[in-house]
Amino acid sequence: MLLNKFTLNDIIERAIQEDLGYGDLTTDNLIAASASSKAQITSKEEGVTAGLEIARAVFHQYDPDLKFKALQKEGDKLQAGTVIAEVEGSTRSILKAERLALNFLQRLSGIATKSREYVELVEAYPAQIADTRKTTPTLRMLEKYAVKVGGAKNHRMGLDDCVMIKDNHLKAAGSIKKAVKKIKANISHTTKIEIEIDQLPLLEEALAAEVDIILLDNMSPEELKKAVQIVDGRVILEASGGITKENVAAIAASGVDIISVGALTHQINSIDIALDLE
Amino acid sequence: MLLNKFTLNDIIERAIQEDLGYGDLTTDNLIAASASSKAQITSKEEGVTAGLEIARAVFHQYDPDLKFKALQKEGDKLQAGTVIAEVEGSTRSILKAERLALNFLQRLSGIATKSREYVELVEAYPAQIADTRKTTPTLRMLEKYAVKVGGAKNHRMGLDDCVMIKDNHLKAAGSIKKAVKKIKANISHTTKIEIEIDQLPLLEEALAAEVDIILLDNMSPEELKKAVQIVDGRVILEASGGITKENVAAIAASGVDIISVGALTHQINSIDIALDLE
Amino acid sequence: MLLNKFTLNDIIERAIQEDLGYGDLTTDNLIAASASSKAQITSKEEGVTAGLEIARAVFHQYDPDLKFKALQKEGDKLQAGTVIAEVEGSTRSILKAERLALNFLQRLSGIATKSREYVELVEAYPAQIADTRKTTPTLRMLEKYAVKVGGAKNHRMGLDDCVMIKDNHLKAAGSIKKAVKKIKANISHTTKIEIEIDQLPLLEEALAAEVDIILLDNMSPEELKKAVQIVDGRVILEASGGITKENVAAIAASGVDIISVGALTHQINSIDIALDLE
Amino acid sequence: MLLNKFTLNDIIERAIQEDLGYGDLTTDNLIAASASSKAQITSKEEGVTAGLEIARAVFHQYDPDLKFKALQKEGDKLQAGTVIAEVEGSTRSILKAERLALNFLQRLSGIATKSREYVELVEAYPAQIADTRKTTPTLRMLEKYAVKVGGAKNHRMGLDDCVMIKDNHLKAAGSIKKAVKKIKANISHTTKIEIEIDQLPLLEEALAAEVDIILLDNMSPEELKKAVQIVDGRVILEASGGITKENVAAIAASGVDIISVGALTHQINSIDIALDLE
Amino acid sequence: MLLNKFTLNDIIERAIQEDLGYGDLTTDNLIAASASSKAQITSKEEGVTAGLEIARAVFHQYDPDLKFKALQKEGDKLQAGTVIAEVEGSTRSILKAERLALNFLQRLSGIATKSREYVELVEAYPAQIADTRKTTPTLRMLEKYAVKVGGAKNHRMGLDDCVMIKDNHLKAAGSIKKAVKKIKANISHTTKIEIEIDQLPLLEEALAAEVDIILLDNMSPEELKKAVQIVDGRVILEASGGITKENVAAIAASGVDIISVGALTHQINSIDIALDLE
Amino acid sequence: MLLNKFTLNDIIERAIQEDLGYGDLTTDNLIAASASSKAQITSKEEGVTAGLEIARAVFHQYDPDLKFKALQKEGDKLQAGTVIAEVEGSTRSILKAERLALNFLQRLSGIATKSREYVELVEAYPAQIADTRKTTPTLRMLEKYAVKVGGAKNHRMGLDDCVMIKDNHLKAAGSIKKAVKKIKANISHTTKIEIEIDQLPLLEEALAAEVDIILLDNMSPEELKKAVQIVDGRVILEASGGITKENVAAIAASGVDIISVGALTHQINSIDIALDLE
Repeated sequence: MLLNKFTLNDIIERAIQEDLGYGDLTTDNLIAASASSKAQITSKEEGVTAGLEIARAVFHQYDPDLKFKALQKEGDKLQAGTVIAEVEGSTRSILKAERLALNFLQRLSGIATKSREYVELVEAYPAQIADTRKTTPTLRMLEKYAVKVGGAKNHRMGLDDCVMIKDNHLKAAGSIKKAVKKIKANISHTTKIEIEIDQLPLLEEALAAEVDIILLDNMSPEELKKAVQIVDGRVILEASGGITKENVAAIAASGVDIISVGALTHQINSIDIALDLE
Repeated sequence: MLLNKFTLNDIIERAIQEDLGYGDLTTDNLIAASASSKAQITSKEEGVTAGLEIARAVFHQYDPDLKFKALQKEGDKLQAGTVIAEVEGSTRSILKAERLALNFLQRLSGIATKSREYVELVEAYPAQIADTRKTTPTLRMLEKYAVKVGGAKNHRMGLDDCVMIKDNHLKAAGSIKKAVKKIKANISHTTKIEIEIDQLPLLEEALAAEVDIILLDNMSPEELKKAVQIVDGRVILEASGGITKENVAAIAASGVDIISVGALTHQINSIDIALDLE
Repeated sequence: MLLNKFTLNDIIERAIQEDLGYGDLTTDNLIAASASSKAQITSKEEGVTAGLEIARAVFHQYDPDLKFKALQKEGDKLQAGTVIAEVEGSTRSILKAERLALNFLQRLSGIATKSREYVELVEAYPAQIADTRKTTPTLRMLEKYAVKVGGAKNHRMGLDDCVMIKDNHLKAAGSIKKAVKKIKANISHTTKIEIEIDQLPLLEEALAAEVDIILLDNMSPEELKKAVQIVDGRVILEASGGITKENVAAIAASGVDIISVGALTHQINSIDIALDLE
Repeated sequence: MLLNKFTLNDIIERAIQEDLGYGDLTTDNLIAASASSKAQITSKEEGVTAGLEIARAVFHQYDPDLKFKALQKEGDKLQAGTVIAEVEGSTRSILKAERLALNFLQRLSGIATKSREYVELVEAYPAQIADTRKTTPTLRMLEKYAVKVGGAKNHRMGLDDCVMIKDNHLKAAGSIKKAVKKIKANISHTTKIEIEIDQLPLLEEALAAEVDIILLDNMSPEELKKAVQIVDGRVILEASGGITKENVAAIAASGVDIISVGALTHQINSIDIALDLE
Repeated sequence: MLLNKFTLNDIIERAIQEDLGYGDLTTDNLIAASASSKAQITSKEEGVTAGLEIARAVFHQYDPDLKFKALQKEGDKLQAGTVIAEVEGSTRSILKAERLALNFLQRLSGIATKSREYVELVEAYPAQIADTRKTTPTLRMLEKYAVKVGGAKNHRMGLDDCVMIKDNHLKAAGSIKKAVKKIKANISHTTKIEIEIDQLPLLEEALAAEVDIILLDNMSPEELKKAVQIVDGRVILEASGGITKENVAAIAASGVDIISVGALTHQINSIDIALDLE
Repeated sequence: MLLNKFTLNDIIERAIQEDLGYGDLTTDNLIAASASSKAQITSKEEGVTAGLEIARAVFHQYDPDLKFKALQKEGDKLQAGTVIAEVEGSTRSILKAERLALNFLQRLSGIATKSREYVELVEAYPAQIADTRKTTPTLRMLEKYAVKVGGAKNHRMGLDDCVMIKDNHLKAAGSIKKAVKKIKANISHTTKIEIEIDQLPLLEEALAAEVDIILLDNMSPEELKKAVQIVDGRVILEASGGITKENVAAIAASGVDIISVGALTHQINSIDIALDLE
C-alpha cells in the first residue's frame, strides 16, 4: 500500500488549482470566514472504500485546521448509507474541498470495488488478480494503490520496472533466446524479465531462456492448463487478454499464478459518495 | 473545443515521466535505434472518436519526427475495426508512446461516446446535455473537451467560473434575495449567477432575485414541466440529479433548457482501441 | 476579495528567490541569528491600504515565527504617518523580507488608491468603475484584488472568462447576429457574452442578438446617454476607452452601468511606505 | 542588456497561462484557424521603446510561425504614431497574444522612458542614474533591462549581489570598521562592499574601512559636494533618497558618481501602445 | 544505457540557470552576437569517455544552432591529448556553455574510468561489478549511466526498485522466513527480493525463503567461496562492503556473481578535459 | 555560510523523489508504522564535518517529527569513530532518509576536508584558498557552502557575478584597455572586474585599465613573486591553474592574495560516514 506523500501532495495541489482558480465565488462571498460545521461523508451504494487518506490529504491541504476522522478502513465493505468519514472545521474550507475529496474517493472506491469483485471470483483458486499499465495518465500511483486496497496485486509500475518482451521485440531480436541474452547483458541483476507468448509451442523456448515470468496472451482455459502442467512451477505464469467477470473463474481454474485485468483501471465506475453538512 | 496547448503539453510530460521512468528497459535494449515502422490505431468496438489531437501530441512529445496521420475527425462514429490514425517513424518511439497515447484515446473516446448517447436520447427536445465538476482530478480540461466532442455542452469549469448558490449558501445568507444581492455586489458584471432549488415554491423567489440560471435539483418530470411553464423563458432552467439513460428523455420532455449529467465523466467506460505495427 | 492562497504562496516564493539568491550577504554576516526586533510599517503619504495579507504572507514565508499585526484594514484610508502594521521577531528575517513586503504593499496600495479616486469621482451616479486586462503579467490576481480593495469592480479575469466580441471578430463572423449565434452554440450556458460597438446604429442589432453586456467604445457622454435611453435596462451598458479622472464624472452622468478604466492597473503610482526597526 | 532567455520563456509561459486559461472563448470560436493577418504595433504617445525582444518572444511562444519584425531598436525615441513593429501570421494567434505583448511593451517602454528623462536631466554632469531593488516582484530582470535600455545603470540585482551595509547592520556590528572587517572575512574577493551613511562625519571612517562604494543617504547638494571633495575619487560615491526630476540636476552638480532613483521602477507610467490588424 | 531525455533536459535547464543567472557579464558584453568559432574538447589525461550525449544536450539547450560532433564513442579509451568532440557555432554560446558541458563530461568520464578499472581487475572471473545507491543526490540517472558506460552493471535504482532486506528489517519481522513471506504478499510478482546477510549460517534460511539475490556483507574471500559452493547457482550471490581495488580480484575469485562497489560513484575523480577555441 | 533554505528544500525534495519513487518496498512492508528508534551517525575516518544542516533538513523533510541532534559543529575535525549526530523517531522515516542524508554528509564533508587540507598547507602565508565554478551541476550552493565550512573562500557564484575577462574575450575586444572600458560602460558599479593574464608583460596594461582582480594563470612561483612586487597591493592577485597539494605552499610563498583550486569540488573523496540504529 505504497503512497509517496510528496507525489500525492503535488497531485492534490494541481487538482486544487484546477477547481479553485481565483477562488470560490459563491462560498467566499456568502459563508462567513468564522463559520464552522461538521460534515458526514456517506456512501450511497455498495462497494469497497478506498482513498480515505487521499481525502484526508485534500482537506488538510485546503485547510490544515480541518479535522478529518475516518470511520472506515481502506478496503472495508460499504453498504448504501455507510458513513465513511467525518470532517469538522471551517464551513468555507469544507465546501471548497468537498468536490475534490469526493472526486478522488468515488473513483478510487470504484477501482477498489471492481478489484474486489475479480478477487472474489477467483478466491477458490491460487491465482491472483493484477492490474496493468492501462491507468489514467498522471494518476497511476493512486489507481494502483486502489487496486491493492481492493485486494488485487500490482503489475509493473512502468516501462523501467521489469522487462516485458512482446511480439515486436522478439521479431527484432530474432529469437527468444537472443532477446533474453541481450536483455540480461544490459539490465540490473535486480530486475525481472517477463515474456509474452501467444502460442504454446514457444513455452519451452521461453523456459530455456530462463525468464522469470511468462505471460500467456489470450489463451483458452485449456491451453492455460496445459501450460501450467508443462511449466510445473519453474516460472510465474500470467494469463492476460480479454479477461472478463464472466470468464475469470475459468481462467483461474487453469492453475495460472497471475491474471492481469485491464478493466480494473480502465472501466472506472465511480461509487456514489456524498458529503452532507449536519 | 478549447484546448490550451501549454497545459496539454505539461500534462503529457508528466504522464510520460510516470510511464517511462529511467527508460523502456525492453524496447531500448532490443529495438535498434535506427529501426522504423508504420502502425495503425484501430477501434475494437463502436463509439465516438475523441482525443486524436492529444494522441498526436503524445507521439510528437516523445519524438518530434514521428508522423501522425488522423484518419478520423474528432466526433466521428467508430465501428469495430475502424482505423482511427496511423503513426510512422522510429519503432522505438512508437512502442514507447503507444500505451500513453492509447490511455488518452480510450478514455476520451469513452467520454465522447457516453456524451453522444445522452445527446441522442434527447434530440427530439430542445434540452441540451451538460457535464459537471465530477471530473478526474487534474484532467478536467481533457474530459470537458471530450464531452464537447461528443456533442454535449460544458457546465462551469470551476469554482471561480459562474456562481452556484446551493442549500448551505442560502442558509448562511438568510434568503435567496439576500444571497443574490450580496453576490452581485462582489462579483464581476461578466459573471452569471446560478441557484439550485429543490422545491418549486422557491422558484418565484429565485426569479425575483434576477439570477441567470435556476438548477432544479432531483425534480420529477412533472415538477420540471411546471417550472418550465412558470418561468416561461425568463431564465435558463437546468435539471440535475439522478439523471440516467433511462429517465433522460422524460426529463427532456419537460422542456428544460439544460440537463447536467455527472455520469458523463464519472463512469468512464474506455473504448477498446489498439495499436498494431504493420 | 478572492485570493487563492496557493497561487499567492507560489508568487511569493518566486519573488523571494529573485531577491535572495544565495542569501543576504550583509544581514546574514552582520546580524546575530538570535537577534530579535520589532518594526513598524508606516505610510509616508496619503492613500488607501491594500496588500496587508500579502505582506503578512511574505513575512511568514520567510520565517513562520515572525508575528505580523495589521493595524489597518484593507481599504482603510491612509495619512502620511499612519502606522499600517507591526512585525516582530528575528531581526535577520525582518530585514531580509522588508523590501519584498514593501514592494507588494506599495504597488497594491497605489492601485487601491487610484481605484478609490475613480470610485469617488462617480459616486453621485449609478455607474461602477471596473478594471481591464491591462495588468502586470503574472500578477493579475494581486492587482485585481487591489482594485476591489479600492472599491471598484473586476472585469473578466482572462480570455476564457466571458466572451468579448470585438471589431475583428465581427468582421470574421459577418454580422453581430451570426457571431453571437456561433458563440452560443459553443460556450457554456454559464458564460456571459459581451460585445463591443463603436457606433450607436449597431446597438439595436446587438440587443436583438441577446447579448448580456454591450461595451460602448470611445463614445461621447451624449452618445452614451442616448444608448442608455435606447437600452432601457435590457442589458448591462459599459463605457470604455479614453477614460480619465477629468472626464469620468461626465461619462458616469450618462447613466451607463459600468465604466472600465485601464489606468487603474496600467499607471502604477506606488504609495511610499517604509519599515523602521524600533 | 542581459536577458536570460530561459527565465524569460518561463515568465512568458506563466503570463500566457494567466490570460489564456482554457482558451480564448471569443477568438477560437469566431476566427477561422486558417485565417491570417498582418498587424502593426504603434505608439500613441512619446517615449522610448523597450521590450521588443520580449514582445517577439511572446508572439513566438504563442505560435512559432508568427513573423515579428521590429521597426525600431530598443532605446529608440518614439513619437505618437511611430510604428514599432509588425506581426504577421495566424489571426487567431495574433489576437490571443496581443494583450500580453502590449502589457509588456507598455510597461517596459514606460520604464525606459522615465529612465531616459532622468539621464537627460543630468547629462551635463558625470553622474550616472541607477535603479534600485524597488522593482515589481518576480519581474526584476525585465524591469532592470528596461532601465538599461533607457540609458541608466543597474544597481545590485539582489541581496546576494554586492554587500550593502545600512544603519541597522552598523548598530549590530558596533562600528563601520568592525562591520567591514567581519564582512570581508566572509564574502568572496569578487564581491564589492557598499556602505550607507547619512551624515558626513562617518565618511572618513568608511574610507578608512576600505569599502568600494559609499551611499550618501538623503543629503543636500551642499553636503554631497563636500563629500565629493573629501573622497577625491578614492571610492564610488552614490547619492540616494528623495530624488525627483526637480532636484536630480542639483544633486548631479555635486559631482557624485551615481544617483539611484527608486521611481524608475516604482512609478510605472505605461506608454500607450496599440496593435491594429491591417 | 538508458537516459530519459525529458529528465536530462530538466537537469540541464536547472544547471544552466545555476551558472548563468542574469547572463554572462563578460561574454555578452565583449563578444559580438554574430561571432562564430570552432572549438575542440580534449582530454588532458587517460581515462574512459562518458557523457558525450549530455555535453551535446548542454550545447543544444544553450543554442540549438550549435553543431556538436562527437569524435569518440561513449566508453572509448582516452589518452592525454585525445580530441573527444568538436563544437561549432556562435562564439557567445560556446563560451557560455563550456563550463557546464565540461563539468558533466569530467565527472561522468571520471566515473566511467573508475568503473572500467574495477571491471578490468575482475575480468578473469565471472563476477560483474555493480554500483550502489551512493550517488550524488538528484544526479543518479547520469551517474548510473556512466557506470554502465564504464562496463559495470547497475544495482537497483531506488527504494521502490527491488526489495532489499537488511538487518533492521529482519529484526522487525522476526525471521527471514516471516520477512520474505510478508514482502511477497505485498509486492508485485514483477519485483525481485534481495536479502543481506552477514554470516554464513543464515544462508540456508535465505535459500529456503526463496529470495532472488543474497547479498553477502563484508565477508572474507573464504567465506564467499563457501557460500558459492553452498548456493550452487540457485540464487544470485552478491558481495559487498569494503571493496577496494586491492581486494576486488580476490573477492571475484570466490566465484560470486556480483560485486557492488560504492566507490564507483562515491569517490569522483574527474578527468581533466578542456575546451579550446581554434 | 549562506544557504538559501528555499533552494535547499527544493533540492532535497528532488533527491527524495529520486530515491523513494513509489515508496520503500522493504521498509514500508516490514517495519511497523508505530515503531520508533534512535540512531547514531558516525564517521568511519578522519576529516572535517560539513552538511549537518543539510542532513537535518533531509530528515525533517521526510518526517517533521524526527528529532535530529547535531553533536558536532560544521567545520569540526572528525576522527574515526566520532559520533556526528543522533536522530530519533519513526524507524520507517529514519531508514528511508538514511541513504540520502548520508549521501549529502559524505560528499560535503569530503569537500570540507579537502578544503581544510589546502588551507592548512598555506597557513604560514597571507594567501587564501578559493574554489572555482568546477562544481557538480545543480549543487553549486551546497558545494560552495562546504568549501567555506572547510575554511576556504568562495570565488564568483556564476557568470553574472563578477566579470572574468579571459583570452578569447581579449582577442575579441582588441586590447585589455578596450575590453575593460566596454565592460565598465555596461555593468553595474557594484560589480567587480577580474582579468586573466598568462604572461607578466600584460600586468601593467591590466593595472592601467583599473581592474579589481588579476588572475595569473599557470605561472611559476617566481613569476608570481615578480607580479606581487609589481602590483604592490594595488589590486587583488589570484593564482590559478595546476594547483596541487604539492605545489600550493610554494605558490602561496609568492605572496599572492588568492589561490583558486578546482580540485576542491572537482575531485570529491567522500568521507565514510554511517548510520546505525541503537
